[in-house]
Amino acid sequence: MNELIINLNVKSKTPLYEQIYEHMKQEICEGTLKYGMKLPSTRSLAKFLEISRSTVELAYEQLLSEGYIEAIPCKGFYVSELDGLYRQEQRIEPAKKSGVPKKRYCYDFTPNGIDLKNFPYNVWRKISKEVLLEDKPDLFRSGEAQGDDDLRFAIQNYLHQARGVKCSVEQIVVGAGNEYLLMLLGMLLGKGYKVAFENPTYKQAYRLFDKVCDEVVSVNMDSSGIQIEKLRESGANLVYVMPSHQYPLGIVMPIKRRLELLKWASECEDRYIIEDDYDSEFRYKGKPIPALQGFDSNGKVIYLGTFSRAIAPAIRISYMVLPERMVELYEQKCKFLSCTVPRTEQRVVSQFLEQGYFERHLNKMRAVYKARHDILLNQLKPLLGMCYITGEHAGVHLL
Amino acid sequence: MNELIINLNVKSKTPLYEQIYEHMKQEICEGTLKYGMKLPSTRSLAKFLEISRSTVELAYEQLLSEGYIEAIPCKGFYVSELDGLYRQEQRIEPAKKSGVPKKRYCYDFTPNGIDLKNFPYNVWRKISKEVLLEDKPDLFRSGEAQGDDDLRFAIQNYLHQARGVKCSVEQIVVGAGNEYLLMLLGMLLGKGYKVAFENPTYKQAYRLFDKVCDEVVSVNMDSSGIQIEKLRESGANLVYVMPSHQYPLGIVMPIKRRLELLKWASECEDRYIIEDDYDSEFRYKGKPIPALQGFDSNGKVIYLGTFSRAIAPAIRISYMVLPERMVELYEQKCKFLSCTVPRTEQRVVSQFLEQGYFERHLNKMRAVYKARHDILLNQLKPLLGMCYITGEHAGVHLL
Repeated sequence: MNELIINLNVKSKTPLYEQIYEHMKQEICEGTLKYGMKLPSTRSLAKFLEISRSTVELAYEQLLSEGYIEAIPCKGFYVSELDGLYRQEQRIEPAKKSGVPKKRYCYDFTPNGIDLKNFPYNVWRKISKEVLLEDKPDLFRSGEAQGDDDLRFAIQNYLHQARGVKCSVEQIVVGAGNEYLLMLLGMLLGKGYKVAFENPTYKQAYRLFDKVCDEVVSVNMDSSGIQIEKLRESGANLVYVMPSHQYPLGIVMPIKRRLELLKWASECEDRYIIEDDYDSEFRYKGKPIPALQGFDSNGKVIYLGTFSRAIAPAIRISYMVLPERMVELYEQKCKFLSCTVPRTEQRVVSQFLEQGYFERHLNKMRAVYKARHDILLNQLKPLLGMCYITGEHAGVHLL
Repeated sequence: MNELIINLNVKSKTPLYEQIYEHMKQEICEGTLKYGMKLPSTRSLAKFLEISRSTVELAYEQLLSEGYIEAIPCKGFYVSELDGLYRQEQRIEPAKKSGVPKKRYCYDFTPNGIDLKNFPYNVWRKISKEVLLEDKPDLFRSGEAQGDDDLRFAIQNYLHQARGVKCSVEQIVVGAGNEYLLMLLGMLLGKGYKVAFENPTYKQAYRLFDKVCDEVVSVNMDSSGIQIEKLRESGANLVYVMPSHQYPLGIVMPIKRRLELLKWASECEDRYIIEDDYDSEFRYKGKPIPALQGFDSNGKVIYLGTFSRAIAPAIRISYMVLPERMVELYEQKCKFLSCTVPRTEQRVVSQFLEQGYFERHLNKMRAVYKARHDILLNQLKPLLGMCYITGEHAGVHLL
């Protein structure tokens, strides 16, 4: 075959070589050009179509590299064997715009709702601009797997002062949200873990561990939190607790139960406690309750905190403090995973902390939330015969 | 006991109630105040210390809520039982500054290196500023779990035009990096998957799946890519391939092998192909090779792409295109997980795409990388007796 009729449109925006390529590809797919058929040489096709030979060569090269045709040395180009080639129909559908408009409520009582009216937009913009103007191209390179030093120093400082958490920056791992860090933790711990959850608990974490761990169990609570005897009976070697303000019951775990829990963990080499300190920043009476991690002298507590709640939900920065003994394991098993938080975002948050804006923001939000909290409690007073309230001493939710 | 000697410092910045609280906590921890001991009443202690009663009450309340003391109605306050309380020593160490300075090389040949000299910093800053100034507080609320609509539309558009990927925005899931998306995929698929990798392959993905999946196997390749017969023999039901430019061998999978692979997947309900299209943007000869996903009419391909390579490593935005049949499964199993990418970052990237900067940037980088690629090939020419080169037709690496 020296000729091949191809309707070329010289006025088209599509380059000639692409027109040839598209035409031949289609014919091959439709079976018009069959397996084994010899194609015209580039020279003869160029002559036939009255175009330059290099144009035909370009088209053939593209067909070759995608495997539609084959080149046999000293013989020429042949159609490849493509049995069962099926082209699918266009499947793109217009995006579903959900028909049901979202309900609007006068008051938002969802437990993960956040007051953004008081978010310091101007400060945030100012810092973001400064970070952008710093002219540090390095911020666009991949950074430390555990998170950038600046941010980890700022977190270490904050956790030490505000939460009584004792750690070095090497123990801190930064990630895009608690859920991601829990997935990472699942990988880190590997197989053979049975995780106990408080009953009731934070559903998201339960669902997540149900997928990443071998086995998940629920352990009942009393008024001090998770029951240690029940925990022991469950056979679990990992327990997920929220000692500063349990969700949803609002229990603050007393020091005695904390120590019992730490004792439970220290009884076996492979036992660990995950402390989710998720809304510890908001306590309206007295000082914040220190974190369980600060009482742990055996390296048994994996501490988890987030800025999504204290700054804004869209700030996807959480942090995990590993016990010292786990740092090496992390380096072996997970260090190859890049940090999931953009470095510019890390820099903005570390500046927000370092320059004291975070503390100011927390103080302000504490006052805002406390005022609402008090209004709610007052409004509920007349109902106290019919219901009772728990968990009202700490955190942004009550039951 | 009605008295308790506490050295209060009225000039200290620490509030009086906190001094009392700290003192009593320490005495309880050290065992000076023993379990069961009755504490002075708030009134008598206030009188003894010559301070207001509310100050003492505040200190007692804090001790109560942390569980150091107990209140027995009509009797008073008692020290709680705290056996085995151990306070740990200060453990904070100065951050290890690694002693070995990083080696500097004249030429960076690492396969994940990126030219950032040509990164459009000014455009990026301009868009980032615009996004910050848009005054959309919504950007700080939590967004869509799969990623914001804007960005998913922009990705759909780009993938359709540049990669021949056919999908609706509902099929697109945005996440903080390929590794995160692979972890998500592991959760989505659940147990019972045996994953086949090309041999050799991209180590990171292999290590990751080794942790999240039941079983991982290596399948040998020939010059067209993974061997289908070997794949069949391996008993795997999931395969991870890079058809546009295999890493590290650089093979472009010809259309015939692609169809065979799709046929393999269509033979069983639970078989899937993960297509990692990681550096498809950079092809120096002819048109880009279309993605495997575009040929798939049975919903068997899970497509994976990233902006970390084409824009900058620190841009932690990757995307996954699920087959239609998996979208419902995703909604059941993973929709509860928040999106890991900050919304401001999503907005910047979607503007970068929509305003045409991404295409311009790609064209520029293609020229930059091609020039380097050609220099390297030329310099290697004299060595061709001693070595051979593969994978030089596509992507940023060659072997």
